[in-house]
Formats: sequence, structure tokens, C-alpha cells
Amino acid sequence: MPFHEINVKNVKIDDKFWNKRIRSAVENIVPYQWRVLNDQEPGAAPSHAVMNFKIAAGMESGEFYGYQFQDSDLAKWIEAASFSLIYQDSPQVRAALDQAISIIEKAQQPDGYLDTHYILKKPDKKWQEIAHGHELYCTGHMLEAAVAYYTVTGSERLLKIMEKNVKLIRQVFGKAKGQIDSYPGHEEIELALMKAYRVTGEQVYFELAQYFVENRGEKPGFLEEPRFLELAKERWSQADYHQAHAKIREQKAAEGHAVRAMYFFTGAADVALETGDSTLKKALENLWSNVTGRRMYITGGVGSQGDGERFTIDYDLPNDTCYTETCAAIGLAMWALRMLRLEPDARYADVMERALYNNVLSGISEDGEHYFYVNPLQLKPDVAQYRRDHESVEPERVKWFGCACCPPNVIRTLCGLGGYVYTQRGEAIYQHLYVGHSAEVETSSGVAHLTCTSSMPWQGAASITYHGPVGISLYLRVPEYAMGFALTKDGTPVEFTVERGYAKLTPQNGSTYQVNFEMEARLVQANPRVTEDCGKAAVLRGPLVYCAEEADNGPLLNSFILDMSIAPELEESPLFGGITTLQVAGTRPDMEVWPEDRLYSAAPNARQAAQMKLIPYFLWNNRGLGEMLVWMNAR
Amino acid sequence: MPFHEINVKNVKIDDKFWNKRIRSAVENIVPYQWRVLNDQEPGAAPSHAVMNFKIAAGMESGEFYGYQFQDSDLAKWIEAASFSLIYQDSPQVRAALDQAISIIEKAQQPDGYLDTHYILKKPDKKWQEIAHGHELYCTGHMLEAAVAYYTVTGSERLLKIMEKNVKLIRQVFGKAKGQIDSYPGHEEIELALMKAYRVTGEQVYFELAQYFVENRGEKPGFLEEPRFLELAKERWSQADYHQAHAKIREQKAAEGHAVRAMYFFTGAADVALETGDSTLKKALENLWSNVTGRRMYITGGVGSQGDGERFTIDYDLPNDTCYTETCAAIGLAMWALRMLRLEPDARYADVMERALYNNVLSGISEDGEHYFYVNPLQLKPDVAQYRRDHESVEPERVKWFGCACCPPNVIRTLCGLGGYVYTQRGEAIYQHLYVGHSAEVETSSGVAHLTCTSSMPWQGAASITYHGPVGISLYLRVPEYAMGFALTKDGTPVEFTVERGYAKLTPQNGSTYQVNFEMEARLVQANPRVTEDCGKAAVLRGPLVYCAEEADNGPLLNSFILDMSIAPELEESPLFGGITTLQVAGTRPDMEVWPEDRLYSAAPNARQAAQMKLIPYFLWNNRGLGEMLVWMNAR
Repeated sequence: MPFHEINVKNVKIDDKFWNKRIRSAVENIVPYQWRVLNDQEPGAAPSHAVMNFKIAAGMESGEFYGYQFQDSDLAKWIEAASFSLIYQDSPQVRAALDQAISIIEKAQQPDGYLDTHYILKKPDKKWQEIAHGHELYCTGHMLEAAVAYYTVTGSERLLKIMEKNVKLIRQVFGKAKGQIDSYPGHEEIELALMKAYRVTGEQVYFELAQYFVENRGEKPGFLEEPRFLELAKERWSQADYHQAHAKIREQKAAEGHAVRAMYFFTGAADVALETGDSTLKKALENLWSNVTGRRMYITGGVGSQGDGERFTIDYDLPNDTCYTETCAAIGLAMWALRMLRLEPDARYADVMERALYNNVLSGISEDGEHYFYVNPLQLKPDVAQYRRDHESVEPERVKWFGCACCPPNVIRTLCGLGGYVYTQRGEAIYQHLYVGHSAEVETSSGVAHLTCTSSMPWQGAASITYHGPVGISLYLRVPEYAMGFALTKDGTPVEFTVERGYAKLTPQNGSTYQVNFEMEARLVQANPRVTEDCGKAAVLRGPLVYCAEEADNGPLLNSFILDMSIAPELEESPLFGGITTLQVAGTRPDMEVWPEDRLYSAAPNARQAAQMKLIPYFLWNNRGLGEMLVWMNAR
Repeated sequence: MPFHEINVKNVKIDDKFWNKRIRSAVENIVPYQWRVLNDQEPGAAPSHAVMNFKIAAGMESGEFYGYQFQDSDLAKWIEAASFSLIYQDSPQVRAALDQAISIIEKAQQPDGYLDTHYILKKPDKKWQEIAHGHELYCTGHMLEAAVAYYTVTGSERLLKIMEKNVKLIRQVFGKAKGQIDSYPGHEEIELALMKAYRVTGEQVYFELAQYFVENRGEKPGFLEEPRFLELAKERWSQADYHQAHAKIREQKAAEGHAVRAMYFFTGAADVALETGDSTLKKALENLWSNVTGRRMYITGGVGSQGDGERFTIDYDLPNDTCYTETCAAIGLAMWALRMLRLEPDARYADVMERALYNNVLSGISEDGEHYFYVNPLQLKPDVAQYRRDHESVEPERVKWFGCACCPPNVIRTLCGLGGYVYTQRGEAIYQHLYVGHSAEVETSSGVAHLTCTSSMPWQGAASITYHGPVGISLYLRVPEYAMGFALTKDGTPVEFTVERGYAKLTPQNGSTYQVNFEMEARLVQANPRVTEDCGKAAVLRGPLVYCAEEADNGPLLNSFILDMSIAPELEESPLFGGITTLQVAGTRPDMEVWPEDRLYSAAPNARQAAQMKLIPYFLWNNRGLGEMLVWMNAR
């Protein structure tokens, strides 16, 4: 019996740390984005996303405007807005969703076709620009939206539209004569098809997903077609950019565009869960080892180069010029969740949590209205603003909506966070995240009701109450960083065994467990194969990576040398409404001996004892432009 | 009485270290390059440089081929070949020079115009593409060639051709009605004009040089003309790229294309020496402080970014993606020599020597036939071959002649090295370099004959014999790195005073001095404002920067941590015909605790005592592809 997806509607987050972020998304950003998508928000960049659908629907006249994947902006909003109803059943949002779906319905062509870019601008090029046309990508996002809308509201309206669209795609693509035998340029539809399959049971979704996953890397692929040969000469647009350099079972490393890769592996894991194919599972495990063991930043960021927004080579993890796109970290969390369904192992959850609390959260400002696409681990503003190799690095978060890719992705992740808390199969429930919530989880023995309060990420403490059938196994994750993981029930220690990183409990109806573990600030070094981190250390506590900022420590953060023999000190800080900061000790150079016009001098030079105050990485750049540093020189 | 240029013919290098390099240039590379320029060298990239002149001369039919500055390849060859006659008066080289000049003579148009690119390809665009046309740049190199040919052979043939060309330019450019009021896109002609002025005394050269130097930065400049406005929108092609963002006295920092900047400052210093203008001298001193105090690599490299081949911002000195073009380091040495003429101060000579022994020499392989344009201070081959931001970094020297800019520049520098040894004015002679040689130096009291034998750069020992008039002051440089600088004469210590880094002697006819100083290997740190060098040290001995190579130390050089409390050990090595290597002590990580698929682990991790063998930087990459590192992690 395989693991299955937990209905996101049934896990409602209620957590001191996350509430304000989710509330901001639900109350402010979802309505704001609807206005933006309708070009009704003064000062925001033109979107035209709704207008494109209206024109395609014959409701308005005009021309298509935007990127070829502009439709996906509306799709991601529908998904986020649907999730937002879990937290606030707003009539305005419901009405907007209803209106959006009505327009989409009218825009759909009689045969099921639904991409406004091609309907309006290139009607003779449908399915002809597979590498970069993004038709299948847009379908994927709209299908995810349809599943979210159905899951939360129970309405099949959008799902029916998309079913018609998918059936058309199933006719167009395939290995039969007259069909296009190919696969998407930008993966996304695979995981969406598997979501639709799980809620509908319709085979067409599964078959198409499996075909796209298994066919990827087939030669000749879309890049060998004459019309793509020119494109493929671009150094970063060759087959590996699209994960099309080999069939998935022959892929030894995560290559190419990081978001595409993450979405692909997510969809492939969904297929592997359905088929039980051990060779596909093994391939994904190998790719997971490659990514998390050789190509992932300590923040959960993936994709180390801006050119091609892509993976480069093993251990190549520059801290200042990295890409580490917010969407890619979201993709890593999505993939981790699927790996947890394939096999419950806390190492997947550790990475998922790492990505969510660091690279994903850093994508959004504390005010909820500014976003990073690129999340560097080191920033010097003057260098970032000047150097060519930093041109994809923004030194400050930017206002909502340029190329609107990451911002709505963060919002749908925040509103859909409940989906990351559990996996379940049979009579087993695995809780991966210590995030306060209340949940209903269906098991083979009936519905289990769980509530959790948590002090994470500041303290390793949670309280979990179970109501439901007996005979259920409740597995609680023992985080990699937990010191002295202890469980009590009514003040009495509970004995437990640990299986692949999970403490196994057999709760009674009404059982309440207290989870307690210490989270010491820990100094971490990188594999010496990572050139850029040699001689350096990063400071982490619990799931949080910490960083130094100029706002607390003045400039020239790199000149600090951390003393690894001195443990960091914790401090409860009123910053940002109350956080735990860390104080680390070391030395800084005596700048008196370094006049501005002297570059080099005989060592050793005078150094002075110094301390640095560190804040959680995800909070950086909320106090203006300044230097930031994760990996500190250390001895 | 100002300093003046020493006739390069009168300083003949005869030095154990340099002889093999000069001999290779004279005997092999000069003839080889002549064949390449005539497209007679199988396997070499097509040059067409001589053919372009032949076609322009009406001696052949065909079309122009090559870069718009292809003429300068022949010019630099004439300069190098002329200098080579100092060392080997080859009839073949003389005949080739004679032939080349005859062709050039025929190619020159009646009005004096002489750029084959415009004669053959764009006759209606003469003087119309000043920013990037390179006409004035090519004239500059051909004028340098003419001066070299005249200086060494006494023949005025080429000089007369160029005089006619310069007189045309003097008519075309200027502030009178009908003239083009502008300045060159790529500086070079300024310093060449000043060379011509010194050997001929013709005012036209000086006036034109002064006009170009003083006019630079005048608004509107060539970038404001409508035909350049489009070009100037390119981020790296704006006014500062051309050092045209301000008049020279208002320039606070060296900006833009590094070679252009070095050539400009060189020419400007020549003008300042002639005019005695203290404000121009002060501006150059400020620029010198900026370059050497904030923007120069420890190897004497300048220009830290490949895009725009340019300076970026203060203290921005990445070691792996730097440009540090060989030509730019040559330009820095040229500028240093001019600053020494403006004011004898050993700090200029220290930088000149640093550039020559490190960034310039690293430009050429030990076999003399392979060249670096870009001279990084850190190389990981797999990263350099993969990453976009390393695309200008070649991981190995390349064979002679692609865009043939740096290779002939190195050759003319080697053959013309004698010109860097002395400066002279009145009865004062300053010796800057301890390079074995024999020289005739004209002074106001008559000709002085000097011979020098030297053990540099391996030992701080030299013997200098003087024959000539009495009353001469001989100033010997006390290098910045000399420990216990001592002078003896016939075994007896000589008392001396030191003026701005020079030991002052008053030799008798026939005096022989022994110079002795210790050169300890020294550990050097960078200003903490240099982010990339924080927590690191470089190892130098005498003028030489040392580096670690994979050939001696295996891979993962960055994982070594140098122990700065342990002095490097010297070792006489048979490598490369006999060099001094250094052994440094420190630690390397125990790789047993670092499996290939684990990226991060709690610190501190096991480290083991280790040593690294260092070789002089200029010798790197003579033993195949591998890692190289100058700045080592240190504690």
C-alpha cells in the first residue's frame, strides 16, 4: 500500500512562527495579486494575464501581452487563492475564483486547447515550439490550480476544463503514427498530472505523466529537430539544460535548469510511487544523493549559476554568484515530500525543512511584499551592483511582479504549507514538520485527528495530541540537529524506537505527547571539495542557517575570523517581533594598520578580539542594503 | 633637467635567468612570427597581416582579412625584430624588416594615410569610427616600431613613413575649424608620439601627444556623437571604458579597459615629463596610488573583470575570475618606468619588477611557444572549463596567435628588457633591476660603462662594475623585500645613504661593487577590504610570488591551511633547469571523514599536518593541466 497525498485542506497551520506569514499571504497578497493580474493595481508592472484570457474568450479585443508562460501567473494565483480559503473563506476571493474560471472556460477552444499565447499570437505554431513554448508547463500549473480548487471547494469546474485540455494533449502526444513523440521543454505537467490522477483516478492523467517521464531523453528529442538545432548551439540551451541528455535511469547527476530538474524529479517520484518501479526509485535516490550530497547549498538552495539558471558541476557552490532561485528551493521541498512518500526517511525531511526555513523563506520579505529570485549566501552591495558575474544577483528584494515566477510560488507554498506536514499509508502516520496545526488524517482504520503546538524554530518543543482509532503508528521525526530527543506523556517519559529517523509511537485516543529536544548552535564545515567554503564555517541552529549582516556588525564581514573553539551564545532578541540571535567570537583585523591605499603587507598582522551577531538567514535584507555573510572564515 | 629614456640598444641583457628567455624570443619566435604574419607557417591560424599591406600596396589582389587592428601585429613584430638585432644581428631578420618596410611604404597613400583595414575595406569611413576603429592605435604601434628600428639600425626609413602619417593625423585632428576634435578610442599613440619626439625632436609629435592626452574626457567626446550613442549603451562600452569619463586631472581612479588605461597613463607621464606640469604629475601619482594601492593583484596584474577587460571597483580582486591580461601588466611596467623618470622612487621600481617577474612572465610558457592572455591567481580546471564567469580564463596556455595581442607584446618586452634597467638624468644614474647586463649610459659628464652580473631572482647578490667619468652618482635600488642590504667594494663595506629607496654611490672609474641582501620567504596578507583574500596568505620571495600546483601537491589545494607561525623552507630544485622552491607547513583535512556524497558536517573536523611545495607563479602550468593557487587559507 503506497503512501498518498494528505489533503491540504485537512491540515490547517496554526503556529506562532508561520501564522503571520500565512495571514499576510491570505489577507493581503492574494487579493493584491488578483488586482495585479487584472491590471488594476496602480504602480505594479503590467500583467495582462486575465486580459489575455478575456481576449481569447472573445470578451475583449486586443493582443496578447507578456511572456509565453503568462497564463501560469493566473494558474498559480488560482492555486494560492484556493489554498487561502482554508484559512479565510473570503466571498471576494471565491467570487474572483469563480470569475477567473468562467473566463478560462470561455477561452478554451472547442478541441480543448487552452494556451492564450498561442491562441492569440501564434495559432499556427501550436505544439511546434516544444522546447521553449511552455504550453505544457502552463497546462501543468492550471491543472495544479484545478486540483487545488477542487480539493478546497469541492467544485469540479476547473478540473473539467483541464480534463478536456489534457485529453487533447493525450491525443497530440504519443508514440502512435501522427502523434508528436516528445516531452515538455519545461517540466511541470508531470507532477500536476499525478495530482489530478490521485484526486480523480482517471487513467489518462497517469498514462500521460508516465509517458512524459519515461520518454524524456529519448533520441531524437525535441532538441534534435531542425527547428531547435540553432537554439541548441547555445551553450546553456543544450539537452542537459532540459534534463533531456539521458533517460532518467541513466541520469547520474542533476543537470541543467534547476527548477525544471526539481519539477521533473518530483513528477518522476510521483510516477514511481504509483508504479512501484524500483529502478525508477533507485534512479531518484541516486539523483537525490547527487543533489544533496554534492550540489546543494547549506540553505537548501540549488542551481549555482545564473547563466542557464542551472546546476554546474559537483561541489561548485560559489556563495556570491549563486543563483539558488526561490522556485528551485520550493521544487526541492516538493521533491523531498515525494521521496518521503516513496520511503519514509528523515534525511528527506531534514532537507525539506532546511529548504523551507531558509532558501524559500528568504525569498519573501518580512512585510510580505518584496521578493528575491536569487538567494546568495554572501553579498557585498558594491560588488553585486558592479560586476558582470553578479548581474543576476539583486542586492535587495524587489517589489512584487517583474517576471512573476517566484513570488506567487512562495505564496502558494505558504498557503499550502499544510501539505508538507504529513505523509501517511495504511495505519502509519509520519509527521515531518514541527509546525503548529490541527489535522484530519485518513488512515486505513479511520480518521485520525491531530493537533500540534510548537515552539519551533526557536525551541525544540512541541505538544501533540491524538484522537482517533487505536492501532495507528504515529512516527515523529527526530531532526538531524536534535540533541537528546525526549518524549513524555502526562509527564512520564515514553519509551520509543527510532526507525530511519522517526520515533515510533502507538497513541491511544486522547494521547498527548510532549516532544523536547535541545538545539545547540552548531558550527558546520563543508566538504573540502567545495573550494569556496574551505577554511570557513557556517553557524546553524535547528533548521535555521544563520548569517551576519552589516546592520549588526558593520562592513567587511569577511575580515572576521570565527574561533571554532568558542561556542556561540544565544540571545533572545526583540528584532523582527522576537527571534533568537547568536553571538559568535573571533577576531577582526586592526584596521589602523591597513591604510586605504595599501594592498599587501607581511603577515601576521594585528588582530583584535571581536564578536559578531548573527540572525537567521531568511531574515536578511529586511533592514536596508548592506553586506551579508553565511560562510565565515574560521579557525 | 628631466630624466630621459635610455637607448635600449645600449643595455644588453646577459643574465642567467633571462638569457634563455631572450634567446628563445630572438632565435625562434621572431623568425616564427614572421612566417606566421606571411601565412607561411603550417598549422598556425591565418594572419594575413603582411598580405593586407601587400594588397593595399597594389602588389597583390584580394580583400582585407582580420581584426580592425591587424596592422598592429606587423608593427609589434617590427619592434620586436628590431630589438632582437641587439642580441643577434641576423641577416635574415634584417632582410625581412627591409622587405616589410618596403611593403608598408608602398601601401601608404599619397596623403600619408596608412591603415589597411580602412584602405581596403572601409575607405569612406576613415577617421569616422574613432571609438573602436583602432586607426590611431595602429599608428601608435607602427610609430613605436619605427623608433625601435631607427634606434637599433640607424635607418630612418620607417620613421619617415610614420612622420608623414603623423603629419596627416595632426591635420585631421585638432580644435581648429574643419578638424575632428577628439581622441583615440584605444590609447597607444600618445606614448609612441613621445618616443618619436625624443629621438627626433620634432614638435609635431609632442604637440599631438599633448593634445590627445589633454583633450581626453572633453565633452562632447566621441561617445556622445550620434554614431556612438548606440554603442555607448553597452554597459562596458561607456566613457569610463575608454578613460573618457573625465579629464585626466579629474580622474580619481583607474577605470575601464586596463590596457588602454595603462597605455594612457604611460603616455600622459611622458607628456608630464616633457612639460614639467606638476598638476599632471600629481594626477598620475594619485592614479598610481589607486591602482597599486586598491586595484592591483599581488602578481602585478591589473584589470579584474573579463567583461570589458577592465578595472571594476576598489579592492575587487577575485582570484579565479580575474582578467589580469598579460598586456595590461606590460602596460603597468611601462607606466612604472615613466613614473621613475618623473621621480626616482623605488616603490615604482618594486611594482615594475613585480609585474615583469610575475604577471608578464607567466604570459609565456617555458618553451616560449604558448601564451596566457589571462593570468588567474587560482585555477580549478573543471570550474574554469565549465562556468560562465570563467569563460575568459584559459586553463592552459594556448599556441601562438589567435587574436595576436599579448604574444608579440611579451616578445617585444623580452627583447626590449634593457630599456627597463636604468633611468638617468644629469650626472645621476639609477639602476632599478638587478639583471645581468652590460650598458653604456650617456650622462651630462660623458658616457658611463656599466656591467652587472646577478643571481636574481634566486639570490640577492649582484656585482656591478663602473667605468666612466668621476662625479657620477650611481643609485642602486634597495628592493622592498631586501633584508640587510649591504654593499662592498674590494671586500670592504661601503657606507651609503638611501634616498627614496636607492643607495647612493659615487663610483670611481673601475669601481666594482658587490651587492648583497637576504631574501627571506615572506608570508603576505591582503588589506581586509579585499574580500577574496580574507583569511588567506600569499608566499613571496624576492620579486617572485609563489604558488601551489596540483603537480606537486595533488588536488584540493584550497583545503590546505597554511600555518603562518612556521617559516617556509627553501629548497634548491632541479625543476625547470634549477629554481628555488619553497616548502610551507600547515594542515589538510582527513578526507576519510568526507565521503563524496556528504556536503556538510559539524566542525571541527579532523585535520592532518601537511606540507605544500610552492613554485614561482610565473612557472605555473608548465607541467600540464591542474589546479593552481596563490592565496592560501592561513591561520
